[in-house]
Amino acid sequence: MLERVAIFGVGLIGGSFALALKEAGAVGEVVGVDRNALNRHLALELGVIDREESDSAKAVSGAALVLLAMPLGQMRSVIEHIAPHIDEESVLTDAGSTKQDVVRLACELLPGSLARFVPAHPIAGAERSGVTAARADLFREHNVVITPLAETSAASIALVREAWTACGAHTCQMSAAFHDRVLAAVSHLPHLLAFALVEELAGRADAEEFFRFAGTGFRDFTRIAGSSPEMWRDVCLSNRAALVSELESYQEQLSSLRNLLLAGDADALEALFARARDGRSAWLAGNKPVDGRNDS
Amino acid sequence: MLERVAIFGVGLIGGSFALALKEAGAVGEVVGVDRNALNRHLALELGVIDREESDSAKAVSGAALVLLAMPLGQMRSVIEHIAPHIDEESVLTDAGSTKQDVVRLACELLPGSLARFVPAHPIAGAERSGVTAARADLFREHNVVITPLAETSAASIALVREAWTACGAHTCQMSAAFHDRVLAAVSHLPHLLAFALVEELAGRADAEEFFRFAGTGFRDFTRIAGSSPEMWRDVCLSNRAALVSELESYQEQLSSLRNLLLAGDADALEALFARARDGRSAWLAGNKPVDGRNDS
Repeated sequence: MLERVAIFGVGLIGGSFALALKEAGAVGEVVGVDRNALNRHLALELGVIDREESDSAKAVSGAALVLLAMPLGQMRSVIEHIAPHIDEESVLTDAGSTKQDVVRLACELLPGSLARFVPAHPIAGAERSGVTAARADLFREHNVVITPLAETSAASIALVREAWTACGAHTCQMSAAFHDRVLAAVSHLPHLLAFALVEELAGRADAEEFFRFAGTGFRDFTRIAGSSPEMWRDVCLSNRAALVSELESYQEQLSSLRNLLLAGDADALEALFARARDGRSAWLAGNKPVDGRNDS
Repeated sequence: MLERVAIFGVGLIGGSFALALKEAGAVGEVVGVDRNALNRHLALELGVIDREESDSAKAVSGAALVLLAMPLGQMRSVIEHIAPHIDEESVLTDAGSTKQDVVRLACELLPGSLARFVPAHPIAGAERSGVTAARADLFREHNVVITPLAETSAASIALVREAWTACGAHTCQMSAAFHDRVLAAVSHLPHLLAFALVEELAGRADAEEFFRFAGTGFRDFTRIAGSSPEMWRDVCLSNRAALVSELESYQEQLSSLRNLLLAGDADALEALFARARDGRSAWLAGNKPVDGRNDS
C-alpha cells in the first residue's frame, strides 16, 4: 500500500494509473498536478485524484511514489521544479514513451537521487487524451517496460513494479537504448506514417472526394493519426535518432516496392505480401494484444 | 427479381453478393463457378449457391446477371472463356478493385457486348477470404462505384444498381480513371504501406523482440496486411500507374517529415500532426464507415 502518490500530468496515463491503484486498494491518497485548470478540476470531480496542488514542493512532500506523466516536452521543467523538494524516501518514476532522453535528464537534474529514479514506459494508450479518457483497466495485461539506470536501487525498482502489477500490468526490463529502438519501429514510425498519409490526402484540393471513398481499412490504418499532436511531436523529437533510422529503413523498403511495381514483378510482390501476412499472423497468434484498448 | 445469377469466384465478395440477394428475395437461382474445389463444395453446402458448374458455357446460360468476382489476375482468362457463350439478354458486371484494366479487357474481349457490360467495384471486404468469410450484410451501407463505358446501356446500369441496392449498398458513378486514382490513394497505397512495414520488421534477426512490444496501435495499422497476397498482387499490378504515382507523393511526404525531424522543427511537426488529426476527425464525423466490417 502506497500511502501517498503524486502524479504530474493527470491525463489518460496519469489518470488511469490513479484509478487502477485505487481500484486495487493499493494507494491511500493521490495528489494531482496538472497545468490545465479544467483537467485538474475534472480529475478532482471524477475522483481520479483526492487533492490537487499547484505548488510542486507541496505536491511531492511525503509522497511514497511520484509519477511523471506529462508530455515529454514538459519533463525538463517539471523535474527542475521538483528536484529540490523530493523527499529522501520518495521513489520517482515516469511514463514517458521514450527513455534515453528521460535518463539523460535525470542524470543532469537529479544526480543525487538516481538510486530512487526508475524510468518506465507503460505500453498502453489511446488516441483520446485527457482525464476523461482515463480508465482503471487501461494497463490490464499490458506491458510496462522498466529501463533502470546502473544507479537505480533494487528496492526502488521493486516498488515501481509492484505499483504497475497492482494496475494489472506485466513489467519487464531492458536498456533505455534498446527500448527506444524497439518502440521507434513498432510504435513511433507507424504513428509518423499514419500522420503522413492523412496529411498527404487532406492537403489536396479534392480531398473530400478521396475521403468519401475511404473505408474502414483506411480508418484503422489511420486510427493512430487521431493521437495527440503535442505528445507525438515530443515523442518524435525525443527519439529522433532511432526514429530517423527506422524511417530510412522504411523508405528503402518503399523504394524496393516501387521497383517491383515498375518491373511488374508479380511473383516477388506476392511473396512479399505473403511473408508480411504470415509474419503478422504468427505475431497475433503468439502475442495477442488486448482488445478494446489502444497501445500507443 | 433476377431469375438466375451466375457468379464466377464464390469467395468473400461473390459469396456475400449471393447471400445478400437471397436474403432480399431478389434472386431465383445462383449458379457458382470457382477454380477451388473445396470452396465450391463449401459454397454449395452452406447454401451460398444453388448449383455449381465447371463448364463456363453452362454456367452463363440463361443468367440474367453474370458477376465476375475472381481475383483480377483471372479476369482475362475467365472473360475469354465465357465471351462466346453469353446470352443476348445477360448483363455482365464485375467486382474488381480496379476499373481501367477491366474496362480495357472488356473492350478487347467483348467488343460486341459493351452495352451490357457494367464495370463496378463494391468498396467492402475483409482481410479474411473464401466463401466461409461471406456474409449477407457485407455490403450494407457500403458504396458500390459503377464506372460505365460510353457504350454501356442505361438499362444494364439500372439492373446492376438494383441488384446492389437489394444488397443494402449505395451506388454511385464516376469514370474508371478517377476511381482508380481515388482507390490508389485511400486503399491500395495503405495496403502497400502496411505490407511494407510488417515485411521490414519480420525480416529482422531479432523480429520477435520487436513484435513482442507491438501493441494494438500496430495491430490496427497493419490489419490490412492480413489481406490476400494474391488479390493485392493483382490489384497493385492492375492499378500500377496510379499506385506508383501515389507512392511517390507519399515518399516525398516522408522525405519532408524526415527533414523536419532532422531539423528538430517542433512547431512544423506539431502543426502537421494536428492537421492530420483534424482532417481525420472531420472525415469520421462526416462519413462514418460502418463498424464491424473491413473495407478493402
